[in-house]
Amino acid sequence: MSLSNAQIDGARLLADLHTLRGFGAYKTGVHRPTYSKVDMQSREWLAERMREAGLTPEIDGIGNVIGRGEGEGPKLLLGSHSESQNHAGWLDGALGVMFGLEVARTLGRGVDVAAWADEEGHFGSFLGSRSFLGELSEADIDAGRNRYDGSPLRGALEAAGLAGRRRITIEPGRYKCYLEAHIEQGDVLDAMGLKIGVVTAIVGNWQFRISFEGVQNHAGTTRMAIRKDAGVALVRLASEIHRRFPAIVAERSVWTIGRILLTPGAPSIVPGGAEMYFQFRDTDPAVLRRMEHELHEIVAEAQAAGPCAVKLDTLTRPAPAVMDPRILDALDRAAERHAPGLHQRMPSGAGHDAQFLAKAMPAGMLFVPSIGGISHHWTEDTAEPDIVLGCQVMADAVAALLATDMAPVPVPG
Amino acid sequence: MSLSNAQIDGARLLADLHTLRGFGAYKTGVHRPTYSKVDMQSREWLAERMREAGLTPEIDGIGNVIGRGEGEGPKLLLGSHSESQNHAGWLDGALGVMFGLEVARTLGRGVDVAAWADEEGHFGSFLGSRSFLGELSEADIDAGRNRYDGSPLRGALEAAGLAGRRRITIEPGRYKCYLEAHIEQGDVLDAMGLKIGVVTAIVGNWQFRISFEGVQNHAGTTRMAIRKDAGVALVRLASEIHRRFPAIVAERSVWTIGRILLTPGAPSIVPGGAEMYFQFRDTDPAVLRRMEHELHEIVAEAQAAGPCAVKLDTLTRPAPAVMDPRILDALDRAAERHAPGLHQRMPSGAGHDAQFLAKAMPAGMLFVPSIGGISHHWTEDTAEPDIVLGCQVMADAVAALLATDMAPVPVPG
Repeated sequence: MSLSNAQIDGARLLADLHTLRGFGAYKTGVHRPTYSKVDMQSREWLAERMREAGLTPEIDGIGNVIGRGEGEGPKLLLGSHSESQNHAGWLDGALGVMFGLEVARTLGRGVDVAAWADEEGHFGSFLGSRSFLGELSEADIDAGRNRYDGSPLRGALEAAGLAGRRRITIEPGRYKCYLEAHIEQGDVLDAMGLKIGVVTAIVGNWQFRISFEGVQNHAGTTRMAIRKDAGVALVRLASEIHRRFPAIVAERSVWTIGRILLTPGAPSIVPGGAEMYFQFRDTDPAVLRRMEHELHEIVAEAQAAGPCAVKLDTLTRPAPAVMDPRILDALDRAAERHAPGLHQRMPSGAGHDAQFLAKAMPAGMLFVPSIGGISHHWTEDTAEPDIVLGCQVMADAVAALLATDMAPVPVPG
Repeated sequence: MSLSNAQIDGARLLADLHTLRGFGAYKTGVHRPTYSKVDMQSREWLAERMREAGLTPEIDGIGNVIGRGEGEGPKLLLGSHSESQNHAGWLDGALGVMFGLEVARTLGRGVDVAAWADEEGHFGSFLGSRSFLGELSEADIDAGRNRYDGSPLRGALEAAGLAGRRRITIEPGRYKCYLEAHIEQGDVLDAMGLKIGVVTAIVGNWQFRISFEGVQNHAGTTRMAIRKDAGVALVRLASEIHRRFPAIVAERSVWTIGRILLTPGAPSIVPGGAEMYFQFRDTDPAVLRRMEHELHEIVAEAQAAGPCAVKLDTLTRPAPAVMDPRILDALDRAAERHAPGLHQRMPSGAGHDAQFLAKAMPAGMLFVPSIGGISHHWTEDTAEPDIVLGCQVMADAVAALLATDMAPVPVPG
């Protein structure tokens, strides 16, 4: 049998995606937070589908669902996440997991499939993929808190029936590479009428908290000359970022101030404190460093100018994850076969589990179009023919990579 | 008896202020929100002190405590508010009420004393003085809500035992003028080593809400070129206010952005909405109109520039309240007698009940120093000798005004 002629079953894929959509259905989207009752039910359901597909499934101590193909490696690892953002889309994450399952069913061998827990960060940051890489300690789990209500991760694992289970970590020598499909989440493919995006790299998303300390006072009785207004200091610095960044960034760079807080935040009180969350993203480490340097300059100038104290905290500073050129070639060829001229290489502006897996093995990603570029909202959607097409491209690429000589990746330990 | 030689009893005044401080004591300050149990206990206590002083007290349907002197007018009306901000100072409001009581005890005749309810705005805006002027309707009371927990004003009045009581309104022809003493709340007197401030005018505090509507999106996948970031629009407009206002304001003008909110306010989401509260204050209507004009220009320019929609809502736009020159003269003379060279005329940057009373009769205000300019905080304080001195100056000025020919103020209705 020529693997590269293997045809996926589009109707079966769509039927399963629609069934998965039923766990936590919300309008036309889903509400399936990590470790919630519907999330755990969907993981049990997924494990059952894996078993039917001939894989050996296990839900581990962090909630990862991993279905192992028969026999020894080297194998391809396919996956994404299965929980959703709150009241969000039906395909964000779910699509990549079900592509993995469908490819495993289609090819019949050589594939492991994973649903990584909590990529969406309800309790932490990429808990599942980090755990699989051995980068999530018990202390990290002790410290984990729900982003919205502050409840402990330990309690959620206990309630989900996961406490005490082993956590599966990567088996040395088993994998040739990792492949993840995902909705684009941006509007690039949709706007250009393209069907497939072949991801070249996942941006580094460098995040910062900038705090300003002034003096809180009465907004009527405190003269302008003696004020130390933390809100004024914040506005001045934010304005300087927006003024200077365009000159030093690259074409695809993005930068965002997503949150601003003035303390105490009352109309008639001069703010004594202020805080903003700032992030920028690019695939080029040199560009990231240039933006960081500019930020440090702007903060230092503000600190020197006074009258408020300015403090810069670096929250995350991950390296961009470059996808493997052999996987890019395989995806390009498969895309050209099924969607000639309707594919392109592109970076991923969003974070994905693949950025962690890429630390341990060659990794690649495939995008399908997001209608209108909408994501993290229940109206998120992708045309069904585009879903089926994307999965077929993935199956072809996986078949080609299985037939390719890629030395198994050595993993420490 | 020459009224102008009347000596107040400083020890009695301080003893009463310290007793009042005991209702809701919090650290060295007080926590006595309007209509709370301690607030109502303090009003009963105050009514009893008024009765002892020969006044006829009544706690009316909005919580005002009004003690009427014997006989017909014309009289002087003295007062301030007796509730406190949350966890705030012991003198803010209480000082003026107790000055009124002590002056009534000292002079023995010609004075009514009032404690206006809710100047601090726990349930509304100057409820007591507005009610006294006939400017607070039953519909206003129906609509009143607690600023912190949203509970209805009607329920609070019921719980305080005030429901169904009549509300006292100004008696036509009774009053020559209104006089209110207060702590300065700013640092001007303290910094200059002065003891008495004679208030020339209470600023108009014009307040606005400025809203920005953009498009919420993913902060990684949405290109800068297509973003409609409401937070960027807000920062740009706020920055423009701070850049242009210094050139068009007057020496004592103040302007403040006290609150900023980005929606949804998450680090990785391009804000789709943004909102800021902006206010400015001055005693000169022409300066207020100039600032308002500049604000409208800035908003119109932002709206024209796009890409976000900008909306300006005017929340309040009160006229400044000019104090009566005859009262200023009387206060100047009394201050010069007891604190020669240690007094000055000055505007009030904070709002006070006097700004409402000034609509119905000549009004005046007297400030005593605030240590370090601190107010709306439990560390607020004034040196006790300064308190006693301030009350003596007020007593002298009241005596002089009682002896002055001021035509009673005609009141409509």
